[in-house]
Amino acid sequence: MAASVSPLCSSFKLSSSVLQPSCHYKFRIFRKCSGLQRCFHQSAFSQTAMVISGKELARQIHKEVQCDVEEWVSFGNKQPHLSVIVVGDNPASHTYVRNKTRAAAALEHINERAVCNAVAPEKDVDGFHIVNIGKLCLDQKSMVPATPAAVWEIIKRTEIQTVGRNVVVAGRSKNVGMPIAMLLHTDGRHERPGGDATVTIAHRCTPREKLKELTRLADIVIAAAGIPHLITADMVKEGATVIDVGINHIQDSETGKIRLVGDVDFEEVRKRAGFITPVPGGVGPVTVAMLMKNTVTAARNTITH
Amino acid sequence: MAASVSPLCSSFKLSSSVLQPSCHYKFRIFRKCSGLQRCFHQSAFSQTAMVISGKELARQIHKEVQCDVEEWVSFGNKQPHLSVIVVGDNPASHTYVRNKTRAAAALEHINERAVCNAVAPEKDVDGFHIVNIGKLCLDQKSMVPATPAAVWEIIKRTEIQTVGRNVVVAGRSKNVGMPIAMLLHTDGRHERPGGDATVTIAHRCTPREKLKELTRLADIVIAAAGIPHLITADMVKEGATVIDVGINHIQDSETGKIRLVGDVDFEEVRKRAGFITPVPGGVGPVTVAMLMKNTVTAARNTITH
Repeated sequence: MAASVSPLCSSFKLSSSVLQPSCHYKFRIFRKCSGLQRCFHQSAFSQTAMVISGKELARQIHKEVQCDVEEWVSFGNKQPHLSVIVVGDNPASHTYVRNKTRAAAALEHINERAVCNAVAPEKDVDGFHIVNIGKLCLDQKSMVPATPAAVWEIIKRTEIQTVGRNVVVAGRSKNVGMPIAMLLHTDGRHERPGGDATVTIAHRCTPREKLKELTRLADIVIAAAGIPHLITADMVKEGATVIDVGINHIQDSETGKIRLVGDVDFEEVRKRAGFITPVPGGVGPVTVAMLMKNTVTAARNTITH
Repeated sequence: MAASVSPLCSSFKLSSSVLQPSCHYKFRIFRKCSGLQRCFHQSAFSQTAMVISGKELARQIHKEVQCDVEEWVSFGNKQPHLSVIVVGDNPASHTYVRNKTRAAAALEHINERAVCNAVAPEKDVDGFHIVNIGKLCLDQKSMVPATPAAVWEIIKRTEIQTVGRNVVVAGRSKNVGMPIAMLLHTDGRHERPGGDATVTIAHRCTPREKLKELTRLADIVIAAAGIPHLITADMVKEGATVIDVGINHIQDSETGKIRLVGDVDFEEVRKRAGFITPVPGGVGPVTVAMLMKNTVTAARNTITH
């Protein structure tokens, strides 16, 4: 079905497989070179959102990173290397960490913020160092946390317009919601260009009805609250872009099995949205790709710092 | 007329002169102890917004600062002292600065950001150091820039509710709009408590009609764009709070004289709003008071750092 999508005319070219139209009926797409402008009322046929394949976007970014690494090494530099420091609760070693935490609580306190700030800012691939947060919020070049960077990359590579558009970010976490809001509302002409969008930050204190009022005005809805089915079809404007950052493990009512879902009622919202990212296979793989990009940037920074 | 305002039952007690009801007709105010809840539809009489006197609030804060200073000095500490470094254009010495700038441009570049970062974060009364910006955005205790701190103080001391309320901040500057949005949307339980409001950041790329759609949903509108008459009465929900951070010098069409106005069409908006700050005499004097508060904090920091 992807064959019906004409190639995009832009600096960021997408292979047709990135966009996976999941329409049940044949439909026409009217598109200008300046962006993905779909005409939603030109066809009497029912249609559903373009599902953005995070896996395919991630594959593209990984290829770019691979090229960067090869070039870097060809100049006689060491292969970039990523070391991981885990603070807090790791599901894979739950008991071990719990015991460590208990022991540590009696002796010494491991402060997450202190650990983030202990990493040299130029090597801080997570972008959690206070100087990187400060730079991000001042629109300076910095290590951008991987998930917000992934959301940005998805929007830009799918050529979704942001300037002057309404964006609602549901979730205000410091590593996801807040930086996404920061990237999208800021000035496109600054050192680290922003999206020039009108951005609303909603969160657990936002009454559901007020959230709905705002999301129905939104051209882009970014769900990053960690609440399954937070965004339902009646909350989304027709043709809007819906990006699902949620990662929730829920028990399937039919099979009893645990499965991964996002914050968006995917099956219903896809019938109304213009673009949508699935969970899994949406923001997740692109986040990993962006972490790899940050790693290469950190390696380059070793020369300039 | 202030005599008709009953005293507030709260931890922050206001003298009645802070609120200056400017109603042309007698009206009744229904208020609960938990906040300033006015019943706007109980009276057939026309009414206008409560005008919040920034001068009076500033006087209160100055008194508090004076007490802090006296206590500080009584413990044998030096009187807090504020040194000012001016970067850029100072109206009072326009020609001098222009000549200096010309000379400097040929020799050395004075970078505003470099100067901000050269001040020790704990003495940075402007709150512009990158570490203070980072801390502000991470909801940590920090030097908060004086204007956003003033807006916060006005809201809190006037007991305007923010939790779950819609706020629109028009303006995204790094020293005013952005920090205001940060203070108001963040978690009330964090180290530096936030307002728990749903916050929309609008700016020059926001189409006027879209801004109006959003401000009409807003319980609090904060105008910080530097555009005279940006916020007009038709954009404001009845009973909303309107805080005017704008400082614009315009030529009066009748007298030909230059006069100071904010971003809000004060005379018309006051007929519709619940609370409003004037320009001059609103945010301005409170900003100066907050700078004095920051100076005392900086003096205290010399002991702990």
